[in-house]
Amino acid sequence: MAVSIAVDIMGGDVGANVTIPASSIALKRHAGLSLYLVGDEVKIAAHITRLSRAERNRCKIIHAPQQVEMSDKPSIALRNRRESSMRLAIDLVKDGHAHAAVSAGNTGALMAIARFVLKTIPGIDRPAICGIMPGIYGATHMLDLGANVDSSAEELFRFGVMGSVLASAIGDKERPTVALLNIGEEEMKGNERVKQAATLLEASELNYFGYVEGDDIFKGKVDVVVCDGFVGNVALKSSEGVARMLTEFARDEFSRNVWRKLSTVFSKRALTAIRNRADPGRYNGASLLGLKGIVVKSHGGADSSSFASAINAAVIEIKNNVPQLISNQIEKTLTRR
Amino acid sequence: MAVSIAVDIMGGDVGANVTIPASSIALKRHAGLSLYLVGDEVKIAAHITRLSRAERNRCKIIHAPQQVEMSDKPSIALRNRRESSMRLAIDLVKDGHAHAAVSAGNTGALMAIARFVLKTIPGIDRPAICGIMPGIYGATHMLDLGANVDSSAEELFRFGVMGSVLASAIGDKERPTVALLNIGEEEMKGNERVKQAATLLEASELNYFGYVEGDDIFKGKVDVVVCDGFVGNVALKSSEGVARMLTEFARDEFSRNVWRKLSTVFSKRALTAIRNRADPGRYNGASLLGLKGIVVKSHGGADSSSFASAINAAVIEIKNNVPQLISNQIEKTLTRR
Repeated sequence: MAVSIAVDIMGGDVGANVTIPASSIALKRHAGLSLYLVGDEVKIAAHITRLSRAERNRCKIIHAPQQVEMSDKPSIALRNRRESSMRLAIDLVKDGHAHAAVSAGNTGALMAIARFVLKTIPGIDRPAICGIMPGIYGATHMLDLGANVDSSAEELFRFGVMGSVLASAIGDKERPTVALLNIGEEEMKGNERVKQAATLLEASELNYFGYVEGDDIFKGKVDVVVCDGFVGNVALKSSEGVARMLTEFARDEFSRNVWRKLSTVFSKRALTAIRNRADPGRYNGASLLGLKGIVVKSHGGADSSSFASAINAAVIEIKNNVPQLISNQIEKTLTRR
Repeated sequence: MAVSIAVDIMGGDVGANVTIPASSIALKRHAGLSLYLVGDEVKIAAHITRLSRAERNRCKIIHAPQQVEMSDKPSIALRNRRESSMRLAIDLVKDGHAHAAVSAGNTGALMAIARFVLKTIPGIDRPAICGIMPGIYGATHMLDLGANVDSSAEELFRFGVMGSVLASAIGDKERPTVALLNIGEEEMKGNERVKQAATLLEASELNYFGYVEGDDIFKGKVDVVVCDGFVGNVALKSSEGVARMLTEFARDEFSRNVWRKLSTVFSKRALTAIRNRADPGRYNGASLLGLKGIVVKSHGGADSSSFASAINAAVIEIKNNVPQLISNQIEKTLTRR
C-alpha cells in the first residue's frame, strides 16, 4: 500500500539532523512509503546527502520560509506562521497530497493549526492527544495528555471510543480494554465527571475495565487509560520527572568514586537495557485523535530512532484508516442517543 | 519539650512488627517523647520486648479491641470502628492526652475519623493531605494528595497557605516558595480554577512562585506545590508506578544472566544509594492539614525506619505548633476580605 507522509523537518528542539536520518529509517522500514520533507530548503539540502539515491527519489522537498517556534502562542502560530513547515505539512494533508503529517514542534500550535486546517469530526470539538506509556507487562494508550481541560463525562467517554479504535489498530487487539483513571480514596472516589463517564462506558459496547489508579498506568494492566487532559498531562510530566530524577541519581551515584565508576563497566549492559525498556522514545508518537486527518506529534527532544517511531505510528494509522474508523464509532454513539 | 504521640500500632499493611521497632527509633531520637501504643494488647506484648526497659517506661499501652481494615469504607469505619486503634489514637488527641496521632491505616478512614473527631479549623471544610516528594535539588511539599476533588480556587489558595506554614516549620524556611501545578500547553494553559487561584496567590503575602509542571515536582524547584486532590493523587501514584516499573526492569535486567548477576556485586552500593535517595519512605509522613490537631499518615507499606520518619514529622509539627499557625494564617486571609 502506497502511503505518503508530510514530515515537519524543523519542529521542536530537534532539527533536520534528527528528522532527516529518521526519514531514512522510515523509508527503509516501509517499502511503499514516500515523504514530503517540509522545511528550510538549505537545511534540508545540508542533510539530504544522508539518504541513498533511491531514498531521495521517494522524497519531495517542500520549502517553508517560516518556522513555528517553541515559544509561539498557538494563536500567533495560527495567524502569523502560515508559511511555516508545520503549517505547510498539515496543508499537504488537507489538500490530499499526504495521508498524514508528523511534527516534533510546539504541541499547542500543532493542535491549533491541525484543528483549524483539518477540522474535527462531527461530535468532537477538540482533538485529544493519545500517547503510549511503557509498563511492566506491556504498553498502555493514554488520552487526553493535555489538549482538553475540564473534560465533561461525555468527552471522557468519547476519549474512550477514540482510544479503543487506536489501540485496536496499533496494538492489533480486537476488543481493547478501556479504563478510567481515578483516585483510590474510597470516600471521595472520583469526581462527578469521572463517575458519570463510568456510567456511559458501562452502557457502551466498549470493553470497559473499570477504574484504575495512577500506578496502574505503568503496569500495562489495560490497553487504554482515559482521563481529563489536565490530569493526563500532569501524570505524563510527573512520570517523566521521576524517570529523570532517577537517571540523575544514577549518574551521580555511579560517578561518586573510582570503584563505582569501575562498576559501571560491569553493569553497563543492564543499565542500558533498563533505560531502553523505560524509554518513552520507544513508543514515541502521540496521535491527535478526532481530526479529519492524521497528525502525529513526536516528543520535542526525540532522537532519529524515536522520531522514526513517530513516522511509523503515522504509517499504521494510515493503513488502518484510523480517522474514518473513529468517525464511524463516534457517529454510532451519537445516533444511538 | 515534652511531647506525647498516640501511635496506631495496627494500621496499614504494617503491624506491630514494624510500628513497635519504629517507636523505639523515635524514642531514641527524641528525649522528651512519650508514646501511647494503641492496638491489640496481645500483639503489642509480643513485640514490646524489643524496647529497652527505659523506653518501655515512656510508653503507655492502650488496648483497642477493633481494627480499621484497608477495605473499610470511611463511613463504615466512622460508624462501626469506634473501638479501633485508629479511632482511639485520634480520641487521645481530642481528649488532650496526646499532641498528635500517627497511623499507617486506611487513608479515607483516617481522614473521615480525624475530621469527625477533631474537627477542622474555621475556613477549612475538609483537611488536605500534604506529603513530601523527593527531588533532584531537594524535597517539595505537595498538597492536596487526594482528600479533596474539584477544589475551588479559594480552596487551592488555602492549600497554599497551609503548605507554606508546614514547609516553614519542617523545612525551617522563612518564606517558602509556593507554586501552582499547571500544564504547559499555552493555548489551554490551566483550567479556570487554577487561573483564579493564581490571582489569589499573587495578591497574597505568600512567596508565590508561579506555575510549575509535573516534572518540576521532582526537581525540588519550589518548597510547596499546590494542586487539586484528584490531580495530586494521580501525580503521586503515577510517580510511584514509574519508580516501581524501573525497579522491576532493574531486577529483571540484573538477573538476566550470570554476568549480569555478578555485576550487581560491583554496583550494589550505587544501586542501593539510588534507591535510598529516591525512596518515598525517606520522607514518609503525610500531614492532614486544616484539622484542630495533628494527624500524620504513614505509607501503608512503611518499614520501621520510615514509620519512625512519620513519628518524627509529628514531633516537628507539635514543636512548631503547626495547627495553631495554620489557624492564624487562615483567619488572617478570612478577615482581610
